[in-house]
Amino acid sequence: MSDEPRRLGESVDLDGDRVARLLLSRLAEPADTALAHAIATLGPSETVDQLRAGTLAHRGLVNLRARLAVASPDRDLAAGAAVDARFIIPGDAEWPEQVGDLSHADRGEAGAPLGLWLRGPGNLRDLCQRAVAVVGARASTAYGEYVAGELGIGLAERLWTVVSGGAYGIDGTAHRGALAGNGSTIAVLACGVDIAYPRGHTALIHEIAQTGLVISEWPPGCAPMRYRFLVRNRVIAALTAGTVVVEAQLRSGALSTANRARSLDRYVMAVPGPVTSTMSAGTNQLLRQPDVHCVTGVGDVVELVGAIGTDLAPQLALPSDPRDDLDETSRRVLDAVPVRRPAGPASIAVTAGIAPAYVLRALGGLAALGFVERVDAGWRLAKSW
Amino acid sequence: MSDEPRRLGESVDLDGDRVARLLLSRLAEPADTALAHAIATLGPSETVDQLRAGTLAHRGLVNLRARLAVASPDRDLAAGAAVDARFIIPGDAEWPEQVGDLSHADRGEAGAPLGLWLRGPGNLRDLCQRAVAVVGARASTAYGEYVAGELGIGLAERLWTVVSGGAYGIDGTAHRGALAGNGSTIAVLACGVDIAYPRGHTALIHEIAQTGLVISEWPPGCAPMRYRFLVRNRVIAALTAGTVVVEAQLRSGALSTANRARSLDRYVMAVPGPVTSTMSAGTNQLLRQPDVHCVTGVGDVVELVGAIGTDLAPQLALPSDPRDDLDETSRRVLDAVPVRRPAGPASIAVTAGIAPAYVLRALGGLAALGFVERVDAGWRLAKSW
Repeated sequence: MSDEPRRLGESVDLDGDRVARLLLSRLAEPADTALAHAIATLGPSETVDQLRAGTLAHRGLVNLRARLAVASPDRDLAAGAAVDARFIIPGDAEWPEQVGDLSHADRGEAGAPLGLWLRGPGNLRDLCQRAVAVVGARASTAYGEYVAGELGIGLAERLWTVVSGGAYGIDGTAHRGALAGNGSTIAVLACGVDIAYPRGHTALIHEIAQTGLVISEWPPGCAPMRYRFLVRNRVIAALTAGTVVVEAQLRSGALSTANRARSLDRYVMAVPGPVTSTMSAGTNQLLRQPDVHCVTGVGDVVELVGAIGTDLAPQLALPSDPRDDLDETSRRVLDAVPVRRPAGPASIAVTAGIAPAYVLRALGGLAALGFVERVDAGWRLAKSW
Repeated sequence: MSDEPRRLGESVDLDGDRVARLLLSRLAEPADTALAHAIATLGPSETVDQLRAGTLAHRGLVNLRARLAVASPDRDLAAGAAVDARFIIPGDAEWPEQVGDLSHADRGEAGAPLGLWLRGPGNLRDLCQRAVAVVGARASTAYGEYVAGELGIGLAERLWTVVSGGAYGIDGTAHRGALAGNGSTIAVLACGVDIAYPRGHTALIHEIAQTGLVISEWPPGCAPMRYRFLVRNRVIAALTAGTVVVEAQLRSGALSTANRARSLDRYVMAVPGPVTSTMSAGTNQLLRQPDVHCVTGVGDVVELVGAIGTDLAPQLALPSDPRDDLDETSRRVLDAVPVRRPAGPASIAVTAGIAPAYVLRALGGLAALGFVERVDAGWRLAKSW
């Protein structure tokens, strides 16, 4: 690497898609529709060539010159290498094909990323074979954090990858749960993979980079700007089979992830919460939409996103009631037997509305089962009952 | 009224449906399918005639003789009159036609009530023109009670009748809410209307009887037997446009009301709650069913059950963000303006990826709106922002 950053038009290596995508990802934001249109039409390399030649006259592309002046793919690669990050593009063995679904984004929305920067030992393509996004509010409550942590642990134990945004609150708790469950987790950042954001999650993001993957579509050094978070969310949605929103206010970035998941035909899931909690207002609102699935725990999640036969949720255990095994006559007789003062069969028959002959037979059976007991003055409920 | 209760076959007045239904409702439970079949085939009066003549040979009907021996419609009417209760039957002006939907019940389930005992100044038919059932767990939490109370008040304020079962917990809180909102509420009991059950709700049931209605299909004096509660729930479902389950365990009578509401083509609504609360396990489970509506407050309820145009829920107020009114260029420029140390337009242009000419124009607009301020060394965020 030279001491001076290289300038565009000076020494950019155009021997492949990779360098072109690297350069383009530095020049413009993913939501830059003018550039996206040029890339979709010309391909990355030809787009770079025409930008250099000044033959792309579209007004929007003129704005890129402010960044052209300082772009340097070599410097980006060196900055990535300094933190053991790699840059992958479509066609690479590790490229997750499903992000290609983003190519069909509506005009004005960001499409598929030009490439992805990855830090960590995980194989992105492999990890995303079984991946679920767990996202939610930064200002989460203890309730949401408990649920997110349990989901993270449970998904990890079932060998599902937890994908989230590395933020405070729900995101961080989901990541930590996955780590606690000895599972793989992927943090998708809205800044370069060399930047730990938020600062308070430096240790967490470091740990994720040591065990799973920290990824970003922005080159090293890019700052976490506000508009990048929403754009980033589409990658979280695209990488996963479904998105679980644990807690969210009515206006929440997590809801944008859910919306992108829906438009990508991924499952949208929400955890119900108290209607008295503003942090559950967004999730409860989601649950009012017909295609949003209510999930109460990891079992519900994997039942939905998992392969049939391998990931079914266990049946909820109902508290058992010994009366359930009684026939209707016995149940009615049992209801008619007094608690303390014993009653004779005739009195019980009147109360139950059942003929005395049937009542006597039922009382015998109920006594055998331990529900009632015969005392001098008649029948009464057994003490244990 | 004579001193001695009259005996069947002695002096029963058969001059109409009313006395026949009164007698039959004393003889058997609503779920007695043998009697229901006879009534459906023969009509109430003829059924009574044949019972007296002993020409109804069905085995199940033999069992009724235990109660025939003590039945007395006159005594029932007198007991009702003693607590100012009236007995209404289909065809009466106050009879709510919608309970007729219960006639189509599946075999083995209780059908339409033979008649209804009413206590209170309300007109049952009128009150049920706009009625919602609010039901739930007896062992409710503070959360559920808060929500049930708010629903009761809110429905009352919107002139909806709150129908419930008078039980401890959610039922009672919903009734109390309706009373607090100066609305009408109907308690549907699983015992005679002369019995206050549960005992701890004596004052509440008395107050409901003074202002709304306490109703039952069982004659005065009938005790609240266990099997009567589930049978009673079908009347709560049938009288109302929809049933809201506020809190419920996985095994809960409130869920039976919801199921009956569904089979009667009424709306089934559930209030979401913490997945960590067993008292919300039943409601959250309901929300996993596609035809169950998630309701977070009275607005959602009346939006669903109300007439279009009169009862629409107000739009949820989103916290407003002044940035929302900015165009995309201004937003990106604003994101690129540093917080403390001022930056020049050229530097901001590079960070924002926007040509300097556009940046200057955007900065001017942002300053006018109070987002940024010009200082000696350049531009920075305004202090208020």
